[in-house]
Amino acid sequence: MSQTGGRARRVDAQANRGRILDVAEDVFGKGGATASTEEVARLAGVGIATVFRHFPTKAALLQAVLIRRFDRLREQAEALLDTAEPGAAFFGFFRHLVADAATKIAIGDALLDAGGDDDGEAARASAGLRRAVGALLDRAQRAGEVRDDVELPEVYALLVATSRAAAHPNLDAEVSARVLDIVFAGLAPIRPATGAR
Amino acid sequence: MSQTGGRARRVDAQANRGRILDVAEDVFGKGGATASTEEVARLAGVGIATVFRHFPTKAALLQAVLIRRFDRLREQAEALLDTAEPGAAFFGFFRHLVADAATKIAIGDALLDAGGDDDGEAARASAGLRRAVGALLDRAQRAGEVRDDVELPEVYALLVATSRAAAHPNLDAEVSARVLDIVFAGLAPIRPATGAR
Repeated sequence: MSQTGGRARRVDAQANRGRILDVAEDVFGKGGATASTEEVARLAGVGIATVFRHFPTKAALLQAVLIRRFDRLREQAEALLDTAEPGAAFFGFFRHLVADAATKIAIGDALLDAGGDDDGEAARASAGLRRAVGALLDRAQRAGEVRDDVELPEVYALLVATSRAAAHPNLDAEVSARVLDIVFAGLAPIRPATGAR
Repeated sequence: MSQTGGRARRVDAQANRGRILDVAEDVFGKGGATASTEEVARLAGVGIATVFRHFPTKAALLQAVLIRRFDRLREQAEALLDTAEPGAAFFGFFRHLVADAATKIAIGDALLDAGGDDDGEAARASAGLRRAVGALLDRAQRAGEVRDDVELPEVYALLVATSRAAAHPNLDAEVSARVLDIVFAGLAPIRPATGAR
């Protein structure tokens, strides 16, 4: 085996892995736990054996999809940490996460059904995203664009709650946008003089 | 059979039905779909045949529990419609519903698992509760205690989303209360001058 041949095979293997993950993200995002690994192989144009060589179990495949997704979102959040408008960065990323959630939630639920996140790698990637959102929140608060008496736990709980609401098939996009308008008004720095308690 | 004896038996049957529903609400609220009808019979102090005479299937029992719960909440909401403080009534009932949700959601999910709400009676009871919340919202808006540019669909979506968040075992009560503080600030009439878009 030549060195060049070995490298070419490694490059092919990486390309296969990436294509499998792309397809799996799409297939499991739409179908959740009911989608099959066979369908992923077929749509990725590889044999089922190739899928299993990269991902020995359905749980391993789902976990890899979720980790890549959390990592990508974390990188997007981190890229916003040096923008000139910390408020727009925070609220914009909040909106982006909610819009992205419909498929992320289906994949997370499918992973639970498939046996879960054994070694905690998906949980670690999720915690990384949460930290990046915390950094965006902190920056928006220091800029006076988010009220300074809220903390990450309640903000993240709202993010998850509104994401799950948006992922529900009965909630249309317009209502979902108005839900976020209410939440964002509640996070804004100048608080109302009356009501609300 | 004397008339008196017949009435006594009907009264007994009603008492049994009520006790079965009380126990079922508690058992299925805690255990969701994993709880059994046998456990309900045992804790209610009746035979399993008595449970099945009143509720031929587990789905019928779960549906009756949910309908009673929705009806009770609707009556509580309606009782608040003539209070002197429409804002306090609306926000207080919102808080009450979220606090109540942990068990309601488990029962709703269990009903879906058991075959669902065939004749739509639980959905009708749920719609009645939603209408009563709409009436509370309308009254609070007319009193100027909730911003007048929000409508029931987004408010109800937030109510369901925060209820589901509060029902999650990982969210502690203090964080859940701060989530509601943010939502209530967002619903308050005087909107902030900056941020939030």
